[in-house]
Amino acid sequence: MAADTPFSHLDETGQARMVDVGDKPVTRRVAEASCRVLLSAETVARLGTLPKGDAHAVARLAGIQAAKRTAELVPLAHPLILDDVAVEIAPGDGGVRITSRVVCQARTGAEMEALTACAMAALALYDMVKAVEKGAVVTDLRLESKSGGARGDFRRRRRE
Amino acid sequence: MAADTPFSHLDETGQARMVDVGDKPVTRRVAEASCRVLLSAETVARLGTLPKGDAHAVARLAGIQAAKRTAELVPLAHPLILDDVAVEIAPGDGGVRITSRVVCQARTGAEMEALTACAMAALALYDMVKAVEKGAVVTDLRLESKSGGARGDFRRRRRE
Amino acid sequence: MAADTPFSHLDETGQARMVDVGDKPVTRRVAEASCRVLLSAETVARLGTLPKGDAHAVARLAGIQAAKRTAELVPLAHPLILDDVAVEIAPGDGGVRITSRVVCQARTGAEMEALTACAMAALALYDMVKAVEKGAVVTDLRLESKSGGARGDFRRRRRE
Amino acid sequence: MAADTPFSHLDETGQARMVDVGDKPVTRRVAEASCRVLLSAETVARLGTLPKGDAHAVARLAGIQAAKRTAELVPLAHPLILDDVAVEIAPGDGGVRITSRVVCQARTGAEMEALTACAMAALALYDMVKAVEKGAVVTDLRLESKSGGARGDFRRRRRE
Amino acid sequence: MAADTPFSHLDETGQARMVDVGDKPVTRRVAEASCRVLLSAETVARLGTLPKGDAHAVARLAGIQAAKRTAELVPLAHPLILDDVAVEIAPGDGGVRITSRVVCQARTGAEMEALTACAMAALALYDMVKAVEKGAVVTDLRLESKSGGARGDFRRRRRE
Amino acid sequence: MAADTPFSHLDETGQARMVDVGDKPVTRRVAEASCRVLLSAETVARLGTLPKGDAHAVARLAGIQAAKRTAELVPLAHPLILDDVAVEIAPGDGGVRITSRVVCQARTGAEMEALTACAMAALALYDMVKAVEKGAVVTDLRLESKSGGARGDFRRRRRE
Repeated sequence: MAADTPFSHLDETGQARMVDVGDKPVTRRVAEASCRVLLSAETVARLGTLPKGDAHAVARLAGIQAAKRTAELVPLAHPLILDDVAVEIAPGDGGVRITSRVVCQARTGAEMEALTACAMAALALYDMVKAVEKGAVVTDLRLESKSGGARGDFRRRRRE
Repeated sequence: MAADTPFSHLDETGQARMVDVGDKPVTRRVAEASCRVLLSAETVARLGTLPKGDAHAVARLAGIQAAKRTAELVPLAHPLILDDVAVEIAPGDGGVRITSRVVCQARTGAEMEALTACAMAALALYDMVKAVEKGAVVTDLRLESKSGGARGDFRRRRRE
Repeated sequence: MAADTPFSHLDETGQARMVDVGDKPVTRRVAEASCRVLLSAETVARLGTLPKGDAHAVARLAGIQAAKRTAELVPLAHPLILDDVAVEIAPGDGGVRITSRVVCQARTGAEMEALTACAMAALALYDMVKAVEKGAVVTDLRLESKSGGARGDFRRRRRE
Repeated sequence: MAADTPFSHLDETGQARMVDVGDKPVTRRVAEASCRVLLSAETVARLGTLPKGDAHAVARLAGIQAAKRTAELVPLAHPLILDDVAVEIAPGDGGVRITSRVVCQARTGAEMEALTACAMAALALYDMVKAVEKGAVVTDLRLESKSGGARGDFRRRRRE
Repeated sequence: MAADTPFSHLDETGQARMVDVGDKPVTRRVAEASCRVLLSAETVARLGTLPKGDAHAVARLAGIQAAKRTAELVPLAHPLILDDVAVEIAPGDGGVRITSRVVCQARTGAEMEALTACAMAALALYDMVKAVEKGAVVTDLRLESKSGGARGDFRRRRRE
Repeated sequence: MAADTPFSHLDETGQARMVDVGDKPVTRRVAEASCRVLLSAETVARLGTLPKGDAHAVARLAGIQAAKRTAELVPLAHPLILDDVAVEIAPGDGGVRITSRVVCQARTGAEMEALTACAMAALALYDMVKAVEKGAVVTDLRLESKSGGARGDFRRRRRE
């Protein structure tokens, strides 16, 4: 990216600001994010044998609910009316892999919502395993794709 | 850790629950967490030359404020009255390194608050650089240390 | 209703999810709900003779404010931009009767908002009379009518 | 109860107020509440055969989380630091029966928290079944017991 | 203004209510507000020499974030999806002058958001100087202008 | 006050921070604040003749509820468990005078809570009269007194 692309949330003096999105059209926006929670094989196995799946349900709900409150948590984010938030949690990649997908029809994208969903789902899961595995690590929290905005779509290349 | 250590937030049927902390004594608790936001050298350099430091201030505040609302975000977390939340942001480690330290006097620890502070500070920073560097990644979100609880202190070994 | 109507918030594996409303049109939606707070005749009479009507005002406001925050409280509910919330409180039916009416222009209905308004208005009223009548009961919390959605309007039959 | 017991939240002119609890001692308080969601036998049966139990998990979490935010929802309620919130959901009594139990160490009781937990768990459950059974009713929302306060314990007599 | 202009939030019996805005068109609305925080010349000077500008950043962010939550704070206010919130803080007028500007596309105006932004920015600034100057006063909190509504634009005359 | 009294929320580099109150004792703290809403005599008179007093009730409740959420609104404020919040509204001083009194037992004072209560009560009142009197001004928002802290009590001198 060119060195002169401006930071959108910082004015020319470096002062933080919201970005006025009033002139952008309302379009359908989709954003997907993911992260991993690194856990021992034993903890992953034990989570998998729990009879009722509540640990995953708690984490999924934490992610969905946090996505809806992103504008309260990220100071310069715009409020968005979300059409859908989906959070999936599955074993794999050295622990548990969390993915989120957020859909809205808005003047700005839902990247922050998708990332917030993953982050809080991961921390809710951490909260449930921390008595067993205090050293769990959340890693690779990142945007996977984004579509619907004026600046073109984004899709992360496969994990190198 | 022994294979029979229970998941504290899951009962014997795997059903999620809060943990009753009513019988624990009130002690001074300190928890420290950290994470990194991986950024290109160019973005780090540009953040460093901004005249007013607002980008860091926004991220620090986002972390402090999220810590205070952890019990709303992590479904089974206990409300805590925090005595102090500190968030530091510094260039390094391939981007920006974020550390948090939370202090309270309570019946349960503030790990989730420290982790939530780092996560939301990182996402607030991501929000400010995303127009320039959409592919930024938050990584190594983890508890660094914890003290004051009945189960003994915890200190992560140096990064291997 | 046919036995094969799906639970909209549960996928085929029983996993809870939000419902993607992105393909539904924005229409004007109205939802009405009601409940009763069962109180002794004496408490009802005393509430009625209070000179300034504040008890009813507190309950009405609690209902209006809770309606605006329904998406934070009901985990899988969509955020809605409400055009109007009205809550009425009147003596009758063995205590106090509470009715709500919520209007919005949205892709999904405002049933949960109308029900949440009644529930929290009732609990705010309970809070004010509980020193006098601890055994008060909230009952018959239910949707009265709903209009504007694709699946047709709903109107509860008269109380049998 | 004597006709001259005052409404604690209303002053002598009927003006609503918080009650100053500053002179009360901190004691361990427990409050239990319950309600029912009336559902058709078919809906109850279908909820019971869902493989992963998520519907109940969503409702339980909604109740736990709402309990923690009671002071935001009930205008004159005091903020409380809760030691535990438990919500149970079980088929029975013409639908689903919801019970809550809240524990804290505080200057005032947690009745409103227990009732709020039941109300919002019930509405979260309603939200999930409403596509199937729009006419579901929440009923018998009430305090079951309360202990730890200066005014003596309360236990509701068996349902008459 | 004529003596018979009704209070919009009060019905004919004086009972408070939300105003149903469902029949109003969605238009672009801009509202500007301002206030001052009266401070000693010494405190203003010291704020100005702080190297990193964080005090102003904290106050600006507090204002922006409060604006986004106005509908939670002002009981009868409508939720609004804000396109932009800007808060500026500058020395002058016997202390510090705070101005806000809020933009949205909605059925009702954003006056309350602009005023809430100024009020909370002012209090966040007060919070930071209170150890030094406890007697600071927030004054002249007022709407400066408003445009985009059906009832015509408003612009305050120059300070008399 | 001496020129070298530090800004408590700003470290030696001007970076904003919370103040660690962990070493302060828990004491009973009382803070009182006030402000005025300047209104035309006609508006004041009309508010006074409303039959049910709801306008004042709405404003009082807005103030009480905002006080409970101060730590969410003022970024560096500590969460406090409030024992009491009282807000009074009375005609006078060229409009309406609002006073608040907040009581807690805590390691830090409740000044910000008392000021936030007045500010949001004033804006709630503004919201209700704004259709009639758009130019209303909130003024003289200030701390009146503070007691219970280590640094000694504060009482504002009579209005000069």
